[in-house]
Amino acid sequence: MLRRYLPILDWGRRYDRETLVNDLVAAVIVTIMLIPQSLAYALLAGLPAEVGLYASIAPLVIYALFGSSRALAVGPVAVASLMTAAAVGQLAAVGTPEYAGAAIALAFLSGLMLLAMGVLRLGFLANFLSHPVISGFISAAGILIAASQLPHLLGVRAGGQTLPELLASILPALGHVNLPTLAVGAFATGFLVWSRSRLGPLLRRAGLGEKAAGVIARTAPVVAVAATTLAAWGLDLAVLGVALVGEVPRGLPAPTLPPLDLDLWARLAVPALLISVVGYVETISVAQTLAAKRRQRIDPDQELVALGAANLGSAVSGGFPVTGGFARSVVNFDAGAATPAAGAFTAAGMALATLYLTPLLYFLPKATLAATIVVAVLGLVDLGALRRTWSYSRADFAAMAATIVVTLGVGVEPGIVAGVVLSLALHLWRTSRPHVAVVGQVPGTEHFRNVKRHAVVTVPGVLSIRVDESLYFPNARFLEDLLYDAVARDPSVRHIVLMFSAVNEVDASALESLEAINARLRDAGVTLHLSEVKGPVMDRLERSHFLKDLTGEVFLTQFDAMERLDPGTTRATLADLRRDTLLPRPATR
Amino acid sequence: MLRRYLPILDWGRRYDRETLVNDLVAAVIVTIMLIPQSLAYALLAGLPAEVGLYASIAPLVIYALFGSSRALAVGPVAVASLMTAAAVGQLAAVGTPEYAGAAIALAFLSGLMLLAMGVLRLGFLANFLSHPVISGFISAAGILIAASQLPHLLGVRAGGQTLPELLASILPALGHVNLPTLAVGAFATGFLVWSRSRLGPLLRRAGLGEKAAGVIARTAPVVAVAATTLAAWGLDLAVLGVALVGEVPRGLPAPTLPPLDLDLWARLAVPALLISVVGYVETISVAQTLAAKRRQRIDPDQELVALGAANLGSAVSGGFPVTGGFARSVVNFDAGAATPAAGAFTAAGMALATLYLTPLLYFLPKATLAATIVVAVLGLVDLGALRRTWSYSRADFAAMAATIVVTLGVGVEPGIVAGVVLSLALHLWRTSRPHVAVVGQVPGTEHFRNVKRHAVVTVPGVLSIRVDESLYFPNARFLEDLLYDAVARDPSVRHIVLMFSAVNEVDASALESLEAINARLRDAGVTLHLSEVKGPVMDRLERSHFLKDLTGEVFLTQFDAMERLDPGTTRATLADLRRDTLLPRPATR
Repeated sequence: MLRRYLPILDWGRRYDRETLVNDLVAAVIVTIMLIPQSLAYALLAGLPAEVGLYASIAPLVIYALFGSSRALAVGPVAVASLMTAAAVGQLAAVGTPEYAGAAIALAFLSGLMLLAMGVLRLGFLANFLSHPVISGFISAAGILIAASQLPHLLGVRAGGQTLPELLASILPALGHVNLPTLAVGAFATGFLVWSRSRLGPLLRRAGLGEKAAGVIARTAPVVAVAATTLAAWGLDLAVLGVALVGEVPRGLPAPTLPPLDLDLWARLAVPALLISVVGYVETISVAQTLAAKRRQRIDPDQELVALGAANLGSAVSGGFPVTGGFARSVVNFDAGAATPAAGAFTAAGMALATLYLTPLLYFLPKATLAATIVVAVLGLVDLGALRRTWSYSRADFAAMAATIVVTLGVGVEPGIVAGVVLSLALHLWRTSRPHVAVVGQVPGTEHFRNVKRHAVVTVPGVLSIRVDESLYFPNARFLEDLLYDAVARDPSVRHIVLMFSAVNEVDASALESLEAINARLRDAGVTLHLSEVKGPVMDRLERSHFLKDLTGEVFLTQFDAMERLDPGTTRATLADLRRDTLLPRPATR
Repeated sequence: MLRRYLPILDWGRRYDRETLVNDLVAAVIVTIMLIPQSLAYALLAGLPAEVGLYASIAPLVIYALFGSSRALAVGPVAVASLMTAAAVGQLAAVGTPEYAGAAIALAFLSGLMLLAMGVLRLGFLANFLSHPVISGFISAAGILIAASQLPHLLGVRAGGQTLPELLASILPALGHVNLPTLAVGAFATGFLVWSRSRLGPLLRRAGLGEKAAGVIARTAPVVAVAATTLAAWGLDLAVLGVALVGEVPRGLPAPTLPPLDLDLWARLAVPALLISVVGYVETISVAQTLAAKRRQRIDPDQELVALGAANLGSAVSGGFPVTGGFARSVVNFDAGAATPAAGAFTAAGMALATLYLTPLLYFLPKATLAATIVVAVLGLVDLGALRRTWSYSRADFAAMAATIVVTLGVGVEPGIVAGVVLSLALHLWRTSRPHVAVVGQVPGTEHFRNVKRHAVVTVPGVLSIRVDESLYFPNARFLEDLLYDAVARDPSVRHIVLMFSAVNEVDASALESLEAINARLRDAGVTLHLSEVKGPVMDRLERSHFLKDLTGEVFLTQFDAMERLDPGTTRATLADLRRDTLLPRPATR
């Protein structure tokens, strides 16, 4: 029991010197990467820079105790920070104690929800956020975040919650661009983009290994931070109008408690749920991808517990919502992190930074942090997914496009909700008008397929219909209409065989329908049979009157049904069968 | 085109003298039955008695033009009247012109919605009202209606929208029961109950035919009306405190228009939709039941058009929402109605009643009408359905029970909404954790079934899994977890065959999952195959990269897959097969 909830009891017993060295190396590299990121994401969330540092200490230690992933790096991430800003921005003004308190309450609520979902094993609920919806949402969030950083890069005052608002606010301000800020922003952005694509190959040519080069290239933001901070100090850029981070309080966070305001909690409930689910989906997919590379297993419900505990930890140490970061976890993994202890060592590094490095941050230009964010989030935007999804499934495309449009045009929460609701509605619409095939025997086999797609043998007077959907209330009447029409169209039909191989459920509405079909076909002189009824469906039908009233039989296989209803034709195809079976048939696509 | 929307053009051309006589006889009997019912349901809806008469004239004529059912009798019915009272009662006080105007607006909106659904062929939307939900709702509505009539039967002042409210209001009033009213109510109720079960057999013994006896027994309410009206007049019961119907305006309704109040319409939109859908579901099931008995076809979308037009007709002639009545349609059918013209003749009879009979209604006690309602609706209550549904399906039972409890305890609209939402949620929950079976070959056949339920042959190293659900976002990750666990548990597995006979869709999220499964199984040295992939699913997979990346093959049948992956075992069962196929196998349940 305890070991289920505390994976550290497992890996901790086998911890040795070599693991320690690997974890320490990874922790140093992740810490270097995390310092500018944590500051930047705190500013993105509308919070003071130090809150980003606070959210990178306690949550990491706690995740190390509860997490089942060996490589996941938790902390502030871009999308959750944007969602925090959207949720808290509606309740309080940036810079007020109420704003910081609401962010803490959001982390606290989100932590409670994740923890509850983990303990109650409700992780499957996150699946209702379909892949196209989450992918569309992340792309849209990336675009929104990049747009929200433009004012910092240009040194203008502008803002807004949606893309139209942001653009309408930025465009008129273009005349007042602060050129020194623009220079800092352009340098930082250019350097980061260059280091992304070119620094790795350069380091490799200089003799570094593939992995080491990749990992070191990821720490480029720290170089940008150092260079622009030095420039801001040496050239006194503040006088020229470049916004600096300024005073950052020194020292570890004091313990905090979320404000005990039930009205506030009620208003934060939906945003907290959405942040929890989006964060969890991202976390679990990163964790599973990395675990699979080393043949490790992730316990999805335990990840909920760990992420929930980490958020509670963030809430009681003055932080804001945290989750697993994709880029950061990949760096951690590539740098050799072997256990969650690497996260705890990263936390120690961040604590040292909070204690000793904050004075150095005074001269850090905000434009540099904005550049860090823009370059990081543009990697999230994948509009090519729209095209790929369109070619695969129109319904999935509609859900994805709706998520993107609503997220950009209305807001992040309505965007996710619209995507989920539309996905579900399209699913229900599709299953309410199921695909149905008239089937015949594939010659030389006991297999029955669609007469429209395969060269198959059918028998006059016997209509075999395969229903490609569970029978439940939205489509219960559909089958009735279909069968009455079929019988009315072909008066020679004497037997109808419903092939139930794809029917995974028959609910009470569909049972009512089947009873009506049976009775009306009987009146019309047509016998109703079933074939290939699955065990769970059969169990339930046996508890009803339907099988007693059924005019025909229930056959184990469609082949049995045809053999019984028309031995003549079946014998002929059996002759084929006997000739045929001595040679294996080729695989058929 | 015109014939699609006007079925009268079809049956009208073949109309002859015999049909005319049949229709006239049916119309006389339905008119006698309809007069007390229409008055009673108007009072139930909180409207003046004459509104019931008005709603039984124009709508019937209009339905005769547009309806595709030969026997359906439309007009005021109990459940729609209760729903009207619930919807309008929240907006205006009973007896005010605003109340009557809102009822007209409700009929108008409901008519527009039905018409739109019919023209757009959206009739399938009504299927989302599952059978257990509608059945539970009708039972609960019956109980609510009966309880709402108790004050009229007892001669006390009481009222309420929910069962607890009604009981809390009636119980303290029991000390003030008006005994003469109670006497009238008890006599009428007793006579109606007696005539329901005993009058038919009595008439049969007196020499009448089965059908004629049944039809005449249905006109008993008119006898009760006549007897109690005479008693109220002769004994001057009004002086003793018996409430009478009183002055009923004489003459046909003046043309009316719904109030042009957008705010009112917005507040009536949801009730109008629910009345439309509930009324339509009841109408279509009565119409289909009766049509099947004479091998006629009903066009469900045309019924929407006809019902919509009838409600618009009710709205412009001072009425309220109408729909097809069950008992009334059965009487119409049994009395020999051959075409919708019977309805038009009934309308003529109701118009005559409005012109000449209203003075006779002055002395009609309201308790008699209440007794008519109570006896009619108690036939709607079917609590035995709860037990039957429980034994068939717990999920359907939950939806039904929730509908009943919420309808009785909160109100009619929340009741329906709760039922529909719960049905959908339970469906999604079920499909999010699908049934999955490991399958093996049934000896002597090419058929593969669950190893836990059938004595089947499996092959070491090959794991065949049948997934009993479409693969879509709520269950996409489920299959991943299942397969990784299965491979981790049995290291001897070299091939996994996913039998897709029950997979009716693979959406983009599931495709992503399948790609991940394929890649991770490849890393683990396991080959992934598919079998029995349906045409529509295959079409879509071919538009993705999945089939190119798939490590294994896609087999037409599961038997082909096993024959390819393990010819040895398959040959052995083929020998069985050859011996076996010369004799037909018995049907197997």
